[in-house]
Amino acid sequence: MNQPQQQKVAVIGGGSWATALVKILSEHSQVQVRWWLRSQADIDHIKTFHHNPRYLSDVYLSPRRVKPCGKIRDAVRGADYVVLALPAAFIQEPLQKLTSADLRGKRIVSAIKGMIPDQNKLVTDWMEDTYGVPLDDMCVIAGPCHAEEVALEKQSYLTIASTNPGCAADFAHLMTCRYVTAHPLADLYGVEYAAVMKNIVALACGITHGLGYGDNFQAVMVSNAMLEIRRFVTAVDPREREMSASAYLGDLLVTAYSQFSRNRLFGNMIGRGYSVKAAQLEMKMIAEGYYAAKSIHVLNQQYGVDMPITEAAFRILYEGEAPALAMNELKGYLK
Amino acid sequence: MNQPQQQKVAVIGGGSWATALVKILSEHSQVQVRWWLRSQADIDHIKTFHHNPRYLSDVYLSPRRVKPCGKIRDAVRGADYVVLALPAAFIQEPLQKLTSADLRGKRIVSAIKGMIPDQNKLVTDWMEDTYGVPLDDMCVIAGPCHAEEVALEKQSYLTIASTNPGCAADFAHLMTCRYVTAHPLADLYGVEYAAVMKNIVALACGITHGLGYGDNFQAVMVSNAMLEIRRFVTAVDPREREMSASAYLGDLLVTAYSQFSRNRLFGNMIGRGYSVKAAQLEMKMIAEGYYAAKSIHVLNQQYGVDMPITEAAFRILYEGEAPALAMNELKGYLK
Repeated sequence: MNQPQQQKVAVIGGGSWATALVKILSEHSQVQVRWWLRSQADIDHIKTFHHNPRYLSDVYLSPRRVKPCGKIRDAVRGADYVVLALPAAFIQEPLQKLTSADLRGKRIVSAIKGMIPDQNKLVTDWMEDTYGVPLDDMCVIAGPCHAEEVALEKQSYLTIASTNPGCAADFAHLMTCRYVTAHPLADLYGVEYAAVMKNIVALACGITHGLGYGDNFQAVMVSNAMLEIRRFVTAVDPREREMSASAYLGDLLVTAYSQFSRNRLFGNMIGRGYSVKAAQLEMKMIAEGYYAAKSIHVLNQQYGVDMPITEAAFRILYEGEAPALAMNELKGYLK
Repeated sequence: MNQPQQQKVAVIGGGSWATALVKILSEHSQVQVRWWLRSQADIDHIKTFHHNPRYLSDVYLSPRRVKPCGKIRDAVRGADYVVLALPAAFIQEPLQKLTSADLRGKRIVSAIKGMIPDQNKLVTDWMEDTYGVPLDDMCVIAGPCHAEEVALEKQSYLTIASTNPGCAADFAHLMTCRYVTAHPLADLYGVEYAAVMKNIVALACGITHGLGYGDNFQAVMVSNAMLEIRRFVTAVDPREREMSASAYLGDLLVTAYSQFSRNRLFGNMIGRGYSVKAAQLEMKMIAEGYYAAKSIHVLNQQYGVDMPITEAAFRILYEGEAPALAMNELKGYLK
């Protein structure tokens, strides 16, 4: 790990996952974090009280290592790494202020587990197309890792995936601390798509739970989902993958089974009879799986992969099919 | 499915899983169940009130289709199938009353997810060695399926594994009903070993939970456990397996994540500081994972497979290693 002494990392986004990443990065004495948040009031609060008032607000944020700022160009200036940690649906607007020149020579790290809506693109592909960032200068952070447990300093593991092994290894080093172990993996697309699709699965698990299905059914759904994810990822980027590794299976498990999962909660409300709109209003948070179901559905029109779980979620969320009917049909596909 | 009209099935064992299997079988009008239970008081209760007083006692057991009896030779006489549904540690004593002749021509179905203690044998291997039952006349029932959810008639799935595809398909037919879908699979050893090992994993998950580890850690442990199970099963019986299928992954998930899992509960008590003996006394139920950890550990001495999770459980349960120390060491092996 031949890294320079001082590493400058820009973190873009003020949510719980962004806050957790800032906490992990600031465990390293050689890391300086410039943290872009949308709200000036939150920035002022962090500067004064060293806690994010909205998310993981028990986490202490060292003022020596963490500098919040409201101008995205200030945040990325001079940075070695730019970490994107916003919901995919919200990334375009703040990044409009940046040009290709602002990002030149910097490594881009996506901590986003969703696709750019409407364009149905992975964040890394979108960064390449929009800003000309070479794929080899990018990596993605995959779980299994709930921000809430990072806040509690519970032992967690991360996977840093990249087409460039050096890039993955370097950033994995910055993501490793007393309570987090990060390891590099040379499968950018597999990890990024799996991270997107697991949110659809968690949402579908929530729906079935809301409908009254039990743990037996969920175990079968998650098993079938792993096969569905592999089928799709193999169609998009064929290669051998160890799908039981924690970057794929573990990430799905923590989302599908955990009490903290927003996607599962959102699905649960749908299963219990909330409309999509009512569930969104009630949650006040973005469930990435909602957008992902559409993106993957649209993308799959060119691949034609058999994806009964994603399709059931899509029909419920976008075509108004009754959850009970869609899941009753899905039952016949599972085994 | 060319089965005779009337099928006679003997079920051996009076616990919750046996009761659930009796319920599923008795959904078929062409099935007659002879049900052996140890306790005469329970038999009398079932004959009078049509409910098992001890387990799943809300389940109605049709007196036309279910005949409880206290003599194991009466139960198996004339049976087409003999279903073994006792904890592995308790199977030898009642079966001593049977001879090879009593079982000749009958198909043996193991619903046991454990190994014969001390002999460290799978139930099917033990039945072959002890009673000369040909492997092709046996199958095993694998989950993911909690008895408690069968009682509630929640949609569940079972896998019937056998070296004999016809045997598996025939019994899968009897295990399929309105709320259960059973499918055959041609991998007896893989399914049987995976079912044994998942109890060790669930127990280890319980230990870490009792120690205060969170969902992030459990997701990584389960992912690593899937790799560990595959390494071991491949060493014992090398072949291609779809490990994400519900018979392997699903069965592990339902046990490792469910509130009903005895192994997880047992592990949790160990993690919280109970001694093994105290936890066993408190639970009043057998946690198969306790015996399985020893059997797999001993068996692995001839294979030498890398199994850090099983070994950590073994050291805690049998060598008195402090759970916190064993899990702290395990942390370094996971990724």
